[in-house]
Amino acid sequence: MQSSITTVPIRRVQGERASVAQDLLAVEEPLEIVVNGRNLAVTMRTPGNDRALAAGFLFTEGIVREPTQIQTITESPNRIEFAASIAEFEERRFYLTSSCGVCGKASIEALESIGCPFLDRSGPEIEATLISRLPSILRARQAVFEHTGGLHAAALFDVQGELLDLQEDIGRHNAVDKLGGQAFLNHSVPLNRHILMLSGRAGFELIQKALMVGIAIVAAVGAPSSLAVETALRYGMTLIGFVREDRYNVYSGANRITFSSVPPSAPRNS
Amino acid sequence: MQSSITTVPIRRVQGERASVAQDLLAVEEPLEIVVNGRNLAVTMRTPGNDRALAAGFLFTEGIVREPTQIQTITESPNRIEFAASIAEFEERRFYLTSSCGVCGKASIEALESIGCPFLDRSGPEIEATLISRLPSILRARQAVFEHTGGLHAAALFDVQGELLDLQEDIGRHNAVDKLGGQAFLNHSVPLNRHILMLSGRAGFELIQKALMVGIAIVAAVGAPSSLAVETALRYGMTLIGFVREDRYNVYSGANRITFSSVPPSAPRNS
Repeated sequence: MQSSITTVPIRRVQGERASVAQDLLAVEEPLEIVVNGRNLAVTMRTPGNDRALAAGFLFTEGIVREPTQIQTITESPNRIEFAASIAEFEERRFYLTSSCGVCGKASIEALESIGCPFLDRSGPEIEATLISRLPSILRARQAVFEHTGGLHAAALFDVQGELLDLQEDIGRHNAVDKLGGQAFLNHSVPLNRHILMLSGRAGFELIQKALMVGIAIVAAVGAPSSLAVETALRYGMTLIGFVREDRYNVYSGANRITFSSVPPSAPRNS
Repeated sequence: MQSSITTVPIRRVQGERASVAQDLLAVEEPLEIVVNGRNLAVTMRTPGNDRALAAGFLFTEGIVREPTQIQTITESPNRIEFAASIAEFEERRFYLTSSCGVCGKASIEALESIGCPFLDRSGPEIEATLISRLPSILRARQAVFEHTGGLHAAALFDVQGELLDLQEDIGRHNAVDKLGGQAFLNHSVPLNRHILMLSGRAGFELIQKALMVGIAIVAAVGAPSSLAVETALRYGMTLIGFVREDRYNVYSGANRITFSSVPPSAPRNS
């Protein structure tokens, strides 16, 4: 049985101090749903109860109407296959991710096929305390969320912490596409001296979109997924999660974060 | 210009009292992305900066590589059309929603085509204070979230407030499909004496999935979208949002919520 949680090594930063720790992440992996030999959908999901997930998908999408239509269900890792007595289903393909966005490319391996660039692992550098200042800047400027509580935000900062753009959308992948698309239309891609701040969680497709526009540092208020961390490690991205007050976790690319040489406990002028 | 916020009438419930109020919601509407006359994608998004959104989508999906490849961009409401000098793109279609799930059906009108049932508007009824008890039951049982902070939960309750099933996933639509699929495989659909509790926001596709399994009452810890409310109203669902302590907002179907006949300020035996 596949696990729904995985353990990863992290750097836990608080103020000017970093320590090595372990963190638990929700697993994100593709599940392929096959009906009568045809690939119907790939969904990015957390393993566990895949049989119910796939059956629920078939039912809520109107492909099967009665449980008796399902003759057999065959499970293998990341793939579930149905034999079902259904009319030939309408030709439509479903490509799903955990919050959509990468539809059509369900795995880290597929990123190269769309020209996803490997980042220059050497730069840019940012100060450890800079990251902690970003969420409050984001919140102060997140206009619509104030009113509705219903929108995700994506904000683009330079490496000095100046806010350059902020976009909101009900879909996180849309907020990131609005940011990246604006930069693309302005001929400013790659954004290789920038930080992307996300108001929520960081799943695979957001990391993919950030990589495509060349962003080397992504910081999220929420948790990253296992596949987000794996992708960040492979492509050389600095991925930071759980940015709360003066604390955060660094999941990959900690080399881009610099700590002041003054020890935090040094006496202040007084 | 389309708005990104809309106002809806609600009932605001606190304890045993309900009052009429107005609430602001984030707008969720489909945007069709057309390239060289071909429909490439439909994404559920919040209107605003559609041009950047669509360009960002084309770039992050690897369909255009340089801004100079885009010759013209034509905007009309909920549709954006590009003329671009690109090689014939790979035959893959994208169907996106705000957090995916309904891929292939981008609007409320399309629900009937998959057999989405209209609910019986008369029942079931629930007590006003029951709703406020559900989030803490959900959190107490949400095992993986405890560890990772990275998962959405969907919980099924009966109308007495007993927890029947709880599913977690990195994708909200998957958590709902796991619940609905389990019930479907158990031959217990329609779930017409049940409450669906969501740990986060309630977008269109979650409402669609709940309707497909016959759930008449959906309560979310977060905000609903405009299209979620519109869909709930049309299909006769009770939709509740922002369930926090003893307060929540009722966006549709308030007739299913009953208030104790004892006035809350009545003296208690003492």
